[in-house]
Amino acid sequence: MFRIALIGAGRIGRIHARNAALHPALELAAVVDPVEASAQALAGEWGAAVRTLEEVIADPGIAGVVVASSTDTHLDYSMQAIAAGKAVFCEKPIDQDLQRARSAAPTLEGARLLLAFNRRFDPNFRALKAKLDEGGIGTIESLQITSNDPAPPPPSYVAVSGGLFKDMAIHDFDMARWLLGEEPVEVYATGSCLVDPEIGRLGDVDTARTLLRTASGRLCVIANSRRSGYGYDQRIEAYASAGMVCADNVRESTVQVFTEGGSSADRLQNFFLDRYAQAYRAEMEHFADMLATGAAPAVGYADGVAALALAEAAARSMASGEVVRL
Amino acid sequence: MFRIALIGAGRIGRIHARNAALHPALELAAVVDPVEASAQALAGEWGAAVRTLEEVIADPGIAGVVVASSTDTHLDYSMQAIAAGKAVFCEKPIDQDLQRARSAAPTLEGARLLLAFNRRFDPNFRALKAKLDEGGIGTIESLQITSNDPAPPPPSYVAVSGGLFKDMAIHDFDMARWLLGEEPVEVYATGSCLVDPEIGRLGDVDTARTLLRTASGRLCVIANSRRSGYGYDQRIEAYASAGMVCADNVRESTVQVFTEGGSSADRLQNFFLDRYAQAYRAEMEHFADMLATGAAPAVGYADGVAALALAEAAARSMASGEVVRL
Amino acid sequence: MFRIALIGAGRIGRIHARNAALHPALELAAVVDPVEASAQALAGEWGAAVRTLEEVIADPGIAGVVVASSTDTHLDYSMQAIAAGKAVFCEKPIDQDLQRARSAAPTLEGARLLLAFNRRFDPNFRALKAKLDEGGIGTIESLQITSNDPAPPPPSYVAVSGGLFKDMAIHDFDMARWLLGEEPVEVYATGSCLVDPEIGRLGDVDTARTLLRTASGRLCVIANSRRSGYGYDQRIEAYASAGMVCADNVRESTVQVFTEGGSSADRLQNFFLDRYAQAYRAEMEHFADMLATGAAPAVGYADGVAALALAEAAARSMASGEVVRL
Amino acid sequence: MFRIALIGAGRIGRIHARNAALHPALELAAVVDPVEASAQALAGEWGAAVRTLEEVIADPGIAGVVVASSTDTHLDYSMQAIAAGKAVFCEKPIDQDLQRARSAAPTLEGARLLLAFNRRFDPNFRALKAKLDEGGIGTIESLQITSNDPAPPPPSYVAVSGGLFKDMAIHDFDMARWLLGEEPVEVYATGSCLVDPEIGRLGDVDTARTLLRTASGRLCVIANSRRSGYGYDQRIEAYASAGMVCADNVRESTVQVFTEGGSSADRLQNFFLDRYAQAYRAEMEHFADMLATGAAPAVGYADGVAALALAEAAARSMASGEVVRL
Repeated sequence: MFRIALIGAGRIGRIHARNAALHPALELAAVVDPVEASAQALAGEWGAAVRTLEEVIADPGIAGVVVASSTDTHLDYSMQAIAAGKAVFCEKPIDQDLQRARSAAPTLEGARLLLAFNRRFDPNFRALKAKLDEGGIGTIESLQITSNDPAPPPPSYVAVSGGLFKDMAIHDFDMARWLLGEEPVEVYATGSCLVDPEIGRLGDVDTARTLLRTASGRLCVIANSRRSGYGYDQRIEAYASAGMVCADNVRESTVQVFTEGGSSADRLQNFFLDRYAQAYRAEMEHFADMLATGAAPAVGYADGVAALALAEAAARSMASGEVVRL
Repeated sequence: MFRIALIGAGRIGRIHARNAALHPALELAAVVDPVEASAQALAGEWGAAVRTLEEVIADPGIAGVVVASSTDTHLDYSMQAIAAGKAVFCEKPIDQDLQRARSAAPTLEGARLLLAFNRRFDPNFRALKAKLDEGGIGTIESLQITSNDPAPPPPSYVAVSGGLFKDMAIHDFDMARWLLGEEPVEVYATGSCLVDPEIGRLGDVDTARTLLRTASGRLCVIANSRRSGYGYDQRIEAYASAGMVCADNVRESTVQVFTEGGSSADRLQNFFLDRYAQAYRAEMEHFADMLATGAAPAVGYADGVAALALAEAAARSMASGEVVRL
Repeated sequence: MFRIALIGAGRIGRIHARNAALHPALELAAVVDPVEASAQALAGEWGAAVRTLEEVIADPGIAGVVVASSTDTHLDYSMQAIAAGKAVFCEKPIDQDLQRARSAAPTLEGARLLLAFNRRFDPNFRALKAKLDEGGIGTIESLQITSNDPAPPPPSYVAVSGGLFKDMAIHDFDMARWLLGEEPVEVYATGSCLVDPEIGRLGDVDTARTLLRTASGRLCVIANSRRSGYGYDQRIEAYASAGMVCADNVRESTVQVFTEGGSSADRLQNFFLDRYAQAYRAEMEHFADMLATGAAPAVGYADGVAALALAEAAARSMASGEVVRL
Repeated sequence: MFRIALIGAGRIGRIHARNAALHPALELAAVVDPVEASAQALAGEWGAAVRTLEEVIADPGIAGVVVASSTDTHLDYSMQAIAAGKAVFCEKPIDQDLQRARSAAPTLEGARLLLAFNRRFDPNFRALKAKLDEGGIGTIESLQITSNDPAPPPPSYVAVSGGLFKDMAIHDFDMARWLLGEEPVEVYATGSCLVDPEIGRLGDVDTARTLLRTASGRLCVIANSRRSGYGYDQRIEAYASAGMVCADNVRESTVQVFTEGGSSADRLQNFFLDRYAQAYRAEMEHFADMLATGAAPAVGYADGVAALALAEAAARSMASGEVVRL
């Protein structure tokens, strides 16, 4: 059993707490949160202790730290934990500032840090990747990533989110890097505020399209909207030299109703807690593997920096109306 | 060019007239119908002459006859035409009376008579049959045939239809024989009047299930309803030793709408004139082949009799509540 | 927290153990199994004690008993536990012998016994039922239940299974009763041995079709095979007066591959442990509700007897070749 | 009956000849083609006369002219026919040169010229447009158009095609204008040569992505490839404020095969002659309506010029690597 400390008892922290607590090889030993009541409640639920960050870092019995606190603390807490010899499971993004993220390289480059890009662990996207890797449809040439949230977040969230590209599309930039097999070298992005004018007043967009291009000419389109109007739309199409592979959305049931006007099928799973429940579990399993076998993280610090670099480039392209070359 | 005469200018006759007239190797030369106006209208549309049955039979320039008149005349007109050396395209059923149909064997057994079971020419069911014949999924073991009309016919039609089994399920009995690879030896049928009580008063049912069993134990379920409430439901599932192949319904378009409540897809093609338009064309092409190359009919008199025998057995089973062994 | 004892540490017992142990309102306190090692292993995994049946029944601190032992013990253990004032979660079938099952009525009729027909808790079938209950597609008229296992069980299992109808179709008889809204009054069944001749030598069939009919004429077809060749096929179609509702299979992922020859989609979830994982959890949640709120079991002793009566009737129909009237 | 002359007896000319000949209100009276044998063969097939262009233009009995000759003649022949008072059915594109196309405005602006953008007549895309127009899913915000050919054309075709944007994407630019409800004001395009290096040597690309933006911020992505590897991929997704509507591909049959590895569905209809057969018929029907009722063309000269302007802008954007503002 590896003893784990969780930093951050918010929505995503509670998911990771549950998955760690239920994992046979992990023990959720400590919960850290500035809000005492949150820490207490979550720790109580799983039989963990409430501790301070300092205690956790100093405790040699803590083998792994899950960093699920606010974004501006990800880098600092991860570095502290890595420096103390612990394995780290760090929520995305690595940071909102590319330069700052890069400056952590001496500590975090190659470290035992799992950057929690949950979609890499989604069974649908993994099955898509496996099909590409099997080679039966040849070499990848282009990619279409659709990623629309069901409903826009409140303006208060948008204000501190870092903007659509760093907050939301960052997942898609990671998917693009994972699947394209080459790093993008050109980014063009454009966006609009069509959903909520308040988002526009905050200097952000709610609808965007980003076009990536790799050195050999592979193309990737990322389509984002803060509001789909029809649930959480998470799809990928990968076009290769001898065919195409796609991963579709997940529905709440397989039920269909046929009437005179046609047929209707059940709604899409509404949001990430449902859609990616399995991914969150698989992510924690991978973290347990890192602890048990010394396996390298499937996605780490360098991936977090690379996705952030694409997000910054997209924001710069949209602001300038010009292609950004990396 | 083979000159063709059409007997019967009703709904189905007009379909065959068009397909014959547009076929490059056929010429619609004559139309016969007791209702002068109907014959005139249809003949005029395609540049054919209005003729009597006797004239058509006696005319050595008529190579083929399409029998699309009322069911009670199918057998007689087919025999006259065959006796006169013509190829015959005869609408289903061959007759409503099994004994009478069998008594025509001396003339019609092995004759150049195409019995117009249109579903044998449907591209979907042909593709299903081809998959079975390719052998990739092994040997057929059982069959599920679903065949529901969109809305019940008027009582006046039901009264002279010969009953659900001979009028409607006869197509499904033919499909079963075509696909099972063995003749059914046991029939059990049951039915209800759930749609229109008037149908019940006429001694018929509007909802039925028939269970066929072959000598080696292959099983087939036929599900029929006179009213689906959601369009023309025409599906087949064939279960084999190493897999399953199914043919689904055809929709009016590929459009889907996604909203908060789920997604909706377009309605099913509503009835046989739409769903089987291609099948009717392919059927006429096969008739042209019979004329041009001497090809044997893909489905003939013996098939018509065999399907009728199953329909009679089903009716008898339902009436008696007992299994009928053939 | 309600303390629970599990009787039977086999495959299905382990599922229930896990779901009970992880439920916030339940505590898996005891495991009973004649095979000491099995009991020990499972109890150890979840921090439960190994106990004897007698101890468990006598312990007033045990609020509920999960009966997952061999079929011939279901009735006896359930009666003991009910008599001792405990709530019971009993695996299906209630028994293999209808008369014996009926004789337990004085103790079990109306008792706090949840009969574990897992499909009633499957989200897909529940969504189908909800659509029927909403009334948007009118009154149910007929039902098609398809239930095929991926591969046949070993002959040793078949020998003690009670036969296809009691072992496998029993689930489908329960589904039929649940959805038809009326009790079946006629049963016709036929079956074949097409998959494994050994099954035939044991006097059983591996392929069957059952036709149920209610007093008002509603019809239900149940299609069963011990081997689909394409995974665990679990579908239902319900035909109503103004439309149709169906629940389709669940696949391992939403991935599709398009190539020159067409497209391919992922395999069906292979067997019940995967397909019904959510159902097993929901079932245990319902049991917790029974304990916490005194809720009546959603499916109980009387349902187990009724499904068994249909299974016996189907077996009798197949043996005699005649319709059985109930 | 309106007498029609066809100019150009090539592949697409033969399609239009057939549809005109079979239309009840049209008579295919004349065929014009510099290759005598082609003209003769096609005229013979439908009972038309072989004529010269001059004869056709001068003949007051010719009510309509179908221009299906080489692209460089579209503008000239259309102007001659319009000047002679005839209705014109002109194949796309209106021309390969935007300035030249614009210079025809005095003659062609508002003329009875149907520009044959066949996709406007496809039942799937019409159903999609109808859903948008009904307003049930709110206001359109963005569009995803996927348009991939099954296999690349020979280099000889590419050399005179005018390039991917004017030859192939021109259809998609028309779809974008038709569906977006606003004119694009910004174009960004990028492309690669990933399929056939010979296409690259000719200065063209075989894979491209174009991003359009309207004044109010609506976004449209057009994805094109000269080779899909899986048939003719023609799909549209329209995202609106309260939902999404999409039109999917058309398959050769509805057959699906289920085996251990998953299920497979039939291939996509392979190319435009199959996929758009209905669209070509509907287009000719609309032309007949223009003749019979004086209906304005659903898509005309101005649409042809506007689509060409977008194609030129896309080509310029790709060449310069910069956004083009219109």
